[in-house]
Amino acid sequence: MKLLVIGGNGFLGSSLVEALRKAGHAVRVLDRTPARRDVDWAGTEYLLGGLEDAGTLESALEGIEGVFHLASSTVPGTSNRDPVFDVESNLVGALRLIEAMQRAGTRRIVYFSSGGTVYGNPDASPVREDHPLRPISSYGVVKVAIENYLMMYWRLGLLDPLVLRPSNPYGPRQSTSGVQGAIAAFLGRALSGEGVSIWGDGTIVRDYLYIEDLVAAAVAAMTSGECGVLNVGSGAGHSLNEVCELIRDVTGRDLPVQYLPGRDFDVSRIVLDIDAATSRLGWLPRVPLREGIVRTWSAFIHS
Amino acid sequence: MKLLVIGGNGFLGSSLVEALRKAGHAVRVLDRTPARRDVDWAGTEYLLGGLEDAGTLESALEGIEGVFHLASSTVPGTSNRDPVFDVESNLVGALRLIEAMQRAGTRRIVYFSSGGTVYGNPDASPVREDHPLRPISSYGVVKVAIENYLMMYWRLGLLDPLVLRPSNPYGPRQSTSGVQGAIAAFLGRALSGEGVSIWGDGTIVRDYLYIEDLVAAAVAAMTSGECGVLNVGSGAGHSLNEVCELIRDVTGRDLPVQYLPGRDFDVSRIVLDIDAATSRLGWLPRVPLREGIVRTWSAFIHS
Repeated sequence: MKLLVIGGNGFLGSSLVEALRKAGHAVRVLDRTPARRDVDWAGTEYLLGGLEDAGTLESALEGIEGVFHLASSTVPGTSNRDPVFDVESNLVGALRLIEAMQRAGTRRIVYFSSGGTVYGNPDASPVREDHPLRPISSYGVVKVAIENYLMMYWRLGLLDPLVLRPSNPYGPRQSTSGVQGAIAAFLGRALSGEGVSIWGDGTIVRDYLYIEDLVAAAVAAMTSGECGVLNVGSGAGHSLNEVCELIRDVTGRDLPVQYLPGRDFDVSRIVLDIDAATSRLGWLPRVPLREGIVRTWSAFIHS
Repeated sequence: MKLLVIGGNGFLGSSLVEALRKAGHAVRVLDRTPARRDVDWAGTEYLLGGLEDAGTLESALEGIEGVFHLASSTVPGTSNRDPVFDVESNLVGALRLIEAMQRAGTRRIVYFSSGGTVYGNPDASPVREDHPLRPISSYGVVKVAIENYLMMYWRLGLLDPLVLRPSNPYGPRQSTSGVQGAIAAFLGRALSGEGVSIWGDGTIVRDYLYIEDLVAAAVAAMTSGECGVLNVGSGAGHSLNEVCELIRDVTGRDLPVQYLPGRDFDVSRIVLDIDAATSRLGWLPRVPLREGIVRTWSAFIHS
C-alpha cells in the first residue's frame, strides 16, 4: 500500500516507517521537523509541514491509500497548562486531516490514541476498551474527542478508522529528556551516571510496550480491515521500582532514586487488556520487559 | 446566590432567569444577542458578549458565586457541516470560561450538555448516565469534550461542576423555525395552517421535557452541592406520530404530515433514566406531554 505517516520523524513514527518499508509498503512522511539523521530515509518521501495548511494536506494525501496519524503537539504531563493550545493544535488539526481525507477520497486511517490517559484512574486492571473514559489530563480529553470524531465518521459511513490505544511504549530513539517515557529517561540517567527522580513512592504500575511490538501491531492494523478501537499493550504491569531494579541489573549502574511528592494527574495503576487486539489483528507482543531494556540500553550505549 | 447565566437570552436561558429571580437569586446574563422583548428583565444585569474575550468574562464573573452555561453556537442537525467551527467556538469557549472562573475564584458551574446527542444510538432505553458515549454529531462530540474537561477539573479539585443532560425541552418561547425542537415547530405550522415534514416514518421516539420542569431541575441543581453528571428528562418516550396526534387534538387543526427519507444522524429511540436526578436533586417532572402542549399552544396563540 501507499501510506502516509503523520509524525513520521518521532520515536514511534520513525520506527513505524522502517517497519512499513520492510513490509514492502511505499511510505510518505509528513512531519514538522527536519528528518532525523539516525534513520535511513532512502526511498521514503519526506514532506515538511503540519496539519494547519489545506494545501500541504492535499499534497500529502495525493495517491495515499491509508494514513497513520501519530503527531501531537502536547504531552500528558504538561497539557493541562494550556488546554486551549491542545484543542486548537491537536483536535482542530485532526479535523482538518479528516476534511482533507474526505476531499482526497482516502478512507483508511490508523490513529494513535493513548491507553495511558483516556481511561483516567481505571476501576480495575487489566482495562478493556469499553471501560468508561475519564481522562484527567487535557491530552487525554483531546485524544477522546479525536476518537469520538473518527468513530462518528465511521458510523456515518464516511471513514474506515482504527484507533489504537498504546500503553507506555519504550525503546531505541526515545528521548531521554524525561518529558515522556520513564524507561528511556532512566536509561539516560544510568548512562550519564546520574540518579533518577520519581513522582510518588515508585509503586505506580504501567504497561511498558517495546517499540518493535507496538510497530508490529500498527502495521497489522493498517492492512487488517478492522475498524473501531483497540488497546495495544504488553499485557503485563511493572512498577517504577521494578523498572529501576531491572535497569540496575541490566546496566550494572547504581541508579539512586529520589522520591518526590506524587502528581495528581498520574494514575496509580494501569495495565491494558489486549484480548481484542490479539484476536482481531493476529498479533502478540513478543519482547519481555527485561529483553526490551537490554536492547534499548545496547542502542543507547552504541549511539 | 449571585448567579451568571451564559446564554440567558435564549428559550431555555430566559425561562431559567425568570425562575431564578422568582427563587430569590440575583441574576446577571451574558449573551451575544440583545435582550428579547417578551421577558421582564427588571432587576437583572444584562451583559452583551461572548466567551472569546477575557475582559468580558472577567466583568461577567465579578462577584458571581455560580455559573449556568447554556450557550451554543451550533445545533445538532447542522453541526457536522463545520466541526472546526463547532470546536473553535464551543469547546474553546468553554475552556476560556473555565480559565476565567479559576482566575475569579468561582468554582460552581451547572453546564447544559445534551441527553439527546451524547449517547448516540443507545443500546437500550431508558438510558443511564453510565451508558457509553457514542455521539454521531459534532454537537454531541463537543458536548462530551466539554463534560470531560469539567469532570477533569473536578477530579483535580479545581471546580465544582454539575453537568445536566436534558432530553428534548419544549415550551413557550421556543423558536418555531424547526432548527431545534419538533413540538414548537409543529405548533408553529398548526398556527399558520401549514402541514409538517418529518424525517423518517414518524416512529422515532424522544423524551420531551416541558421547560418549567427543566428549569426547576436546573435551579435545584445549582444549590444542591451535587457534582457529576445527571440526566434530566420526563421519564417517558413519545413518537413523532404521537406528538402530531396530540397536537391535532389540542389545537383542533388538521396538521397534514409529509414523510421524508430518514437522516443518518438521527437516533431512533432515546428516553433518559432520571433516577439519579430525582434522588440527588429532590426533583420530579410534573407536566405531562399533553398538558405541556396545551400550555405551549396557549402561549403561542396569545403572543
